[in-house]
Amino acid sequence: MHSVGICGSDVHYWQHGRIGDFVVKEPMVLGHEASGTVVKVGSGVTHLKPGDRVAIEPGVPREVDEFCKSGRYNLSPTIFFCATPPDDGNLCRYYKHSASYCYKLPDNVTFEEGALIEPLSVGIHACKRAGVTLGSKVFVSGSGPIGLVNVIIAKMMGAASVVVTDISASRLQKAKEVGADFIVQVKNETPQEVASKVESVLGCMPEITVECTGVQACIQAGIYATRSGGTLVLVGLGPEMVTVPIVNAAVREVDIRGIFRYCNTWPVAIALLASKRINVKPLVTHRFPLEKALEAFETTKRGEGVKVMLKCDPNDQNP
Amino acid sequence: MHSVGICGSDVHYWQHGRIGDFVVKEPMVLGHEASGTVVKVGSGVTHLKPGDRVAIEPGVPREVDEFCKSGRYNLSPTIFFCATPPDDGNLCRYYKHSASYCYKLPDNVTFEEGALIEPLSVGIHACKRAGVTLGSKVFVSGSGPIGLVNVIIAKMMGAASVVVTDISASRLQKAKEVGADFIVQVKNETPQEVASKVESVLGCMPEITVECTGVQACIQAGIYATRSGGTLVLVGLGPEMVTVPIVNAAVREVDIRGIFRYCNTWPVAIALLASKRINVKPLVTHRFPLEKALEAFETTKRGEGVKVMLKCDPNDQNP
Amino acid sequence: MHSVGICGSDVHYWQHGRIGDFVVKEPMVLGHEASGTVVKVGSGVTHLKPGDRVAIEPGVPREVDEFCKSGRYNLSPTIFFCATPPDDGNLCRYYKHSASYCYKLPDNVTFEEGALIEPLSVGIHACKRAGVTLGSKVFVSGSGPIGLVNVIIAKMMGAASVVVTDISASRLQKAKEVGADFIVQVKNETPQEVASKVESVLGCMPEITVECTGVQACIQAGIYATRSGGTLVLVGLGPEMVTVPIVNAAVREVDIRGIFRYCNTWPVAIALLASKRINVKPLVTHRFPLEKALEAFETTKRGEGVKVMLKCDPNDQNP
Amino acid sequence: MHSVGICGSDVHYWQHGRIGDFVVKEPMVLGHEASGTVVKVGSGVTHLKPGDRVAIEPGVPREVDEFCKSGRYNLSPTIFFCATPPDDGNLCRYYKHSASYCYKLPDNVTFEEGALIEPLSVGIHACKRAGVTLGSKVFVSGSGPIGLVNVIIAKMMGAASVVVTDISASRLQKAKEVGADFIVQVKNETPQEVASKVESVLGCMPEITVECTGVQACIQAGIYATRSGGTLVLVGLGPEMVTVPIVNAAVREVDIRGIFRYCNTWPVAIALLASKRINVKPLVTHRFPLEKALEAFETTKRGEGVKVMLKCDPNDQNP
Repeated sequence: MHSVGICGSDVHYWQHGRIGDFVVKEPMVLGHEASGTVVKVGSGVTHLKPGDRVAIEPGVPREVDEFCKSGRYNLSPTIFFCATPPDDGNLCRYYKHSASYCYKLPDNVTFEEGALIEPLSVGIHACKRAGVTLGSKVFVSGSGPIGLVNVIIAKMMGAASVVVTDISASRLQKAKEVGADFIVQVKNETPQEVASKVESVLGCMPEITVECTGVQACIQAGIYATRSGGTLVLVGLGPEMVTVPIVNAAVREVDIRGIFRYCNTWPVAIALLASKRINVKPLVTHRFPLEKALEAFETTKRGEGVKVMLKCDPNDQNP
Repeated sequence: MHSVGICGSDVHYWQHGRIGDFVVKEPMVLGHEASGTVVKVGSGVTHLKPGDRVAIEPGVPREVDEFCKSGRYNLSPTIFFCATPPDDGNLCRYYKHSASYCYKLPDNVTFEEGALIEPLSVGIHACKRAGVTLGSKVFVSGSGPIGLVNVIIAKMMGAASVVVTDISASRLQKAKEVGADFIVQVKNETPQEVASKVESVLGCMPEITVECTGVQACIQAGIYATRSGGTLVLVGLGPEMVTVPIVNAAVREVDIRGIFRYCNTWPVAIALLASKRINVKPLVTHRFPLEKALEAFETTKRGEGVKVMLKCDPNDQNP
Repeated sequence: MHSVGICGSDVHYWQHGRIGDFVVKEPMVLGHEASGTVVKVGSGVTHLKPGDRVAIEPGVPREVDEFCKSGRYNLSPTIFFCATPPDDGNLCRYYKHSASYCYKLPDNVTFEEGALIEPLSVGIHACKRAGVTLGSKVFVSGSGPIGLVNVIIAKMMGAASVVVTDISASRLQKAKEVGADFIVQVKNETPQEVASKVESVLGCMPEITVECTGVQACIQAGIYATRSGGTLVLVGLGPEMVTVPIVNAAVREVDIRGIFRYCNTWPVAIALLASKRINVKPLVTHRFPLEKALEAFETTKRGEGVKVMLKCDPNDQNP
Repeated sequence: MHSVGICGSDVHYWQHGRIGDFVVKEPMVLGHEASGTVVKVGSGVTHLKPGDRVAIEPGVPREVDEFCKSGRYNLSPTIFFCATPPDDGNLCRYYKHSASYCYKLPDNVTFEEGALIEPLSVGIHACKRAGVTLGSKVFVSGSGPIGLVNVIIAKMMGAASVVVTDISASRLQKAKEVGADFIVQVKNETPQEVASKVESVLGCMPEITVECTGVQACIQAGIYATRSGGTLVLVGLGPEMVTVPIVNAAVREVDIRGIFRYCNTWPVAIALLASKRINVKPLVTHRFPLEKALEAFETTKRGEGVKVMLKCDPNDQNP
């Protein structure tokens, strides 16, 4: 292993021992945003060889069921997923993974870019499910890391303008830096008022809303804000039950779609990184050697920077 | 005008003077499930001539806006719609309508079949938005007239099996008659229990749920019941705000989609009726001459039969 | 193995030793329309157990490449396919196959129905790629076995009317029997004339044409016949190079799409067979015990009947 | 009228009096790439008022037929189209057009940008029909004006890399300038050799090919070049009948799709121009006042520059 990013879920398992129904019952290796170098391959592997630098897709279906056969392998109930209990992650020196879910990195893509494909994938999958296309007006609710990757990807898919809302001015500033056309700081507005502000800055209602907070009021705002015939994608996860103006969405044919992780995103991300169309390097704000993992996790827990990278190869701590 | 069916919304306007934000402020002609004979056409009309028998699509956009241009004219905010205040309906002897939204009936399609295209269209639009296709397992929640047309259309689109739930045994019996493979009478079950029963009778979770009641518990059941990666279509309309397990839907990528009336359904329905692939005649259980409209409305209000037809042509009271 | 249907390609390999670039260089077992009973499963198999009756999907990708991950595993260049050299087929007593591509048959589906899923799959894949939907007008060019399954499937998917052309009156009669609304016997007509006849019997141009002959003139007729904005699916395969009115298709936005075998069709077919929505039993016109395979192949070669079944289980020669 | 670009078809009608079946039988005003200022509106027009600056979409369906209702109004046989005989174009001082097809230009979009929406629309429609999306590898065959707009649009829709082929080094240079990642000058290569070069420079076969020449050998190369499961879009129009390796496309499920002009592109283009995401200004290489139209046409005929603009407003000859 070379570089492994720390994700909010890693911190959550570390601190709370569970996320929803997933409970850590035995010691578990964390880490699922990872890249490394192949040291050995099985006898049937033809597309990789020792020495290849690879990015690792953390979810691997264990059976070829109907979800897999129809192209939605992320939904397979048999899926193995790094650092989701009881499956170990890859924040370690050596790790074994299905070769089919290891993707060779071109020479001009760094290990850290390879590790960042994982958070990028959330944005790719969300924007694809949202149907972002040329000329789309997009409303991204929430300016945390996931909000930011959605801004980046929405713009890359041809969105004409993207507006981001958040309660934090500093987080909104980051959205601006990665390409948001408009930012709106929200405080105590009602959901309808937020929707109204979004329409006002865009000059029209957005066809697409990507909700990254999971907060009930934000989901409501997402429904009110989205243009008739548009799509609201739910990326942020909040409480199990939420109260929403479902009739408002229904009679305006605003589709509500969630995402579960991602599928078919690694080849897309690698192609973009190789062609230098996308610059994710600034997202990495901190680096620690694997030995200082605890310090790295505490940095992440304090909410400093954007992405903290752990460097697992003692002989190569470069990006 | 020849035949005009009475819809629940007609009765509602008659009794309550409003549906949601649509308020009857001045006298309004009711009726929007209609067919008749052309007596006169405008100078630019080429596809119709006096004497043609036509079915009437009640919604006509007044402007060619982006919704119209992109094929979703039902969402146009400029739409005229029969018997939605302040627009008059067509339950009368003579009526003027946009020729583009009058569809010539083949000789082997009756006026009443022509009038029934309107309720049928709700099912067509819902099942299209649901993505019903060959081999689909479908759960229809609610066995009223709209539930029934969804059963009929889902089967016609190739659904392998359709299960219908309702609290009324007699309404479920109708579902059986129009083609439902399974019926489940529900009482005090929790939404999860309903979902479990649906899975049990189908032998698997349905990919598609068509919710026709609008009741909160039924929407919840629809979410729990639908297979990961599937679609829940909301047809029934209930209270403005509902509490739903939105995370359950989101992380299983169950899409939630509403419908607003329909678009592009009349040509489809006429083609099906002309080819005798669909038999809607049994849906008409009562007929009254226009003069006895009050009696007809009271029959509908009492919930008798399925569809009540008003016959507007004194010289031809045939189906 | 229990029942294995004989396909035209089996006969072709037997007689000519090759189809296109696929050349039989060593002895090869034929057969790829098959069903049987599980006698043994590998240690990782959970969805099957000895004694289960199964239908066998003959194509199995050897690697999980991008085609597989995105739901189009039939296009994987790594695919194993029964009875396509150098891969052995399953016309034998015992045979080993990937468990993921063996589908359990419900009790109310016979072995022969299970074997017939293979030809049925060609129709399912073609009609799905064609976008057949409720109310479609469909033109099926060619009334051989593949034309027939396309008629059956198109009707099941809600096609309002299907017209079939062929040069053989007896083959057209079969089309009529399986549900074609119109048949047109063609002789020396130009492609334009054929298109014109198709429009004439349907009362309009078909949105969808399924071309099952591979003959150049028929492909041309398929282009001329298809309505603007529609789709021509090429199922029949003819000469490598054909001369076609490509501008006519292009400027009317008639899409031209081919199919390569099928994917994701077995679960669909099993659901339809289990729900008794489809009756393929009459397609089996001849049965021979495995010992009389030569006789069976000669019967098929002579073009007698529709489908010849070989019965591989000496203890059970039932359907 | 303010600015009107000259298109190759304008020159063709001027020189030859016909394109295919469209024959100029009476004097006809040319021009269909246009923008201007509203001087007067009809009584029913609400979205425009005198003084508004507008871009003009030249195709206007005369009837609301099924093509219009389903969002593909460009295919309506009733369509009026500027400067396609017998319909007059808008290369003149004053011109009357359907208000629904006049789109208000934001203050930060120039008249010439407004006029350039027409050629841009060809690229938008082609790339949408091609399904260009995030990470696509795209092969654009031909580096004329239409090839260039396809390069621009494909990149904007998120294509990871675009390769362009042409016989002219100078035209390929332009492709490079507008964003092509790779250019390949072709001479006497066979279609297979061209396909092989495309794969070689991209590092893989492109999922999408946009063919802009209409030349038979190029269409053949487009089929050979496109990855299995991909799409070949035919934009260039050549001879009526072409000989193509249709089996190669069919068995690899390479879809062949044409385009007829465009639909639903003006709002998209205006959103992109307003957000400054796209820079088309360099495409205008020549400007002439309307009085010097002959000189302008002769410049275009000689193939000088990229786009020649005629300035129709004597009081404002600015971009």
